[in-house]
Amino acid sequence: MTGKFIVFEGIDGSGTSTQADLLVQYFRRKGQVCYLTCEPSSGPIGNMIRQGMKGRVIFSKGENPVLEKGDLFDEQMAYLFAADRHDHLYNPVDGVINQVNSGAVVISTRYFFSSFAYHCSSKEDFTLVKTLNSKFPDPDLVIYMDNPVGESIKRMSTRAFADEYENERKLKQVSDNYSKIFSEYEGAFLSLNATNNIDTIHHKIVEKVESLK
Amino acid sequence: MTGKFIVFEGIDGSGTSTQADLLVQYFRRKGQVCYLTCEPSSGPIGNMIRQGMKGRVIFSKGENPVLEKGDLFDEQMAYLFAADRHDHLYNPVDGVINQVNSGAVVISTRYFFSSFAYHCSSKEDFTLVKTLNSKFPDPDLVIYMDNPVGESIKRMSTRAFADEYENERKLKQVSDNYSKIFSEYEGAFLSLNATNNIDTIHHKIVEKVESLK
Repeated sequence: MTGKFIVFEGIDGSGTSTQADLLVQYFRRKGQVCYLTCEPSSGPIGNMIRQGMKGRVIFSKGENPVLEKGDLFDEQMAYLFAADRHDHLYNPVDGVINQVNSGAVVISTRYFFSSFAYHCSSKEDFTLVKTLNSKFPDPDLVIYMDNPVGESIKRMSTRAFADEYENERKLKQVSDNYSKIFSEYEGAFLSLNATNNIDTIHHKIVEKVESLK
Repeated sequence: MTGKFIVFEGIDGSGTSTQADLLVQYFRRKGQVCYLTCEPSSGPIGNMIRQGMKGRVIFSKGENPVLEKGDLFDEQMAYLFAADRHDHLYNPVDGVINQVNSGAVVISTRYFFSSFAYHCSSKEDFTLVKTLNSKFPDPDLVIYMDNPVGESIKRMSTRAFADEYENERKLKQVSDNYSKIFSEYEGAFLSLNATNNIDTIHHKIVEKVESLK
């Protein structure tokens, strides 16, 4: 298999990490070099984003006082995620593109689809995110774990710490945004019912991945 | 005087910091609340940029392997500076916009003009920088310290440490980029010959600033 860039997307608690892990194991059992990564990335910009989402680094809050209405925190994150995405793709230490070019399968939980899903509460936000992400390449496949918001909330109730984005109102918006962007996306795409059992989902993913040329 | 946002621009070694300091002192002597700031900002994103420029944090280098030719380090910096600019303008601790709205004069050495000057080596780069910065407001005045590259190199030879951008070839490009963007800029603008003596330049700046409504 030649190098591939495969992305998992879904609202928090939809099982993207579980399925990404299983897919990595699948590839490695086959002797395929495979890297697991995520966004925000494990690089310096990604780490700053995590601090911001936990409120350990304080970024903007409230409405944009100059331009159209818009959530300033989401705006700031849109810029910062775009900067992190460039680093994630192109940094010389463990950048996605270098790895794919050397023949590896790189599997990422989250990519630019998450910026549309998480940082958009208005049409203007969509325009900004589209603008900031216009240069980044499509992945070879995006797998969407489609999970009802109520189900995600239930699964997450056992987690220790909720970040800025883990509340029901936000997740509903994120879920609606995913529906919108994927209805318009023209690249290779697989949508899965995340309430199915883990093995069933994994086998559907393997089937799709094996069909990639 | 109502709040104002005044920006100094110029290649390294053109005296922007000196003149910004003098202008701050001028305002404070008049009893006007005045803040001095800069880009990269003193915030968390700005500090990461400084580490990147010193090579203490390693970002992308070389040419973009996916899209058009372009310097990956400049590209990464373009994204990161845009994220820092949003933080610089809107963060709730010492953001420019809040300060200007409360009646302060905020003086910044560098603003989005520097992104055009420093991160562009092709037409595609200009398009990217324009895209990333399209939402940021124009300042009330931009003051350009126009200095010959040779003169800047001479002044900088006494500095201890040269960052990624302080070499003659780069400065020539930066200087050319400034000429291009300011020839097209339609906002309030003052260009000054940076080889004149410090007091002469300061008095011209004060005259212009006092003419702002």
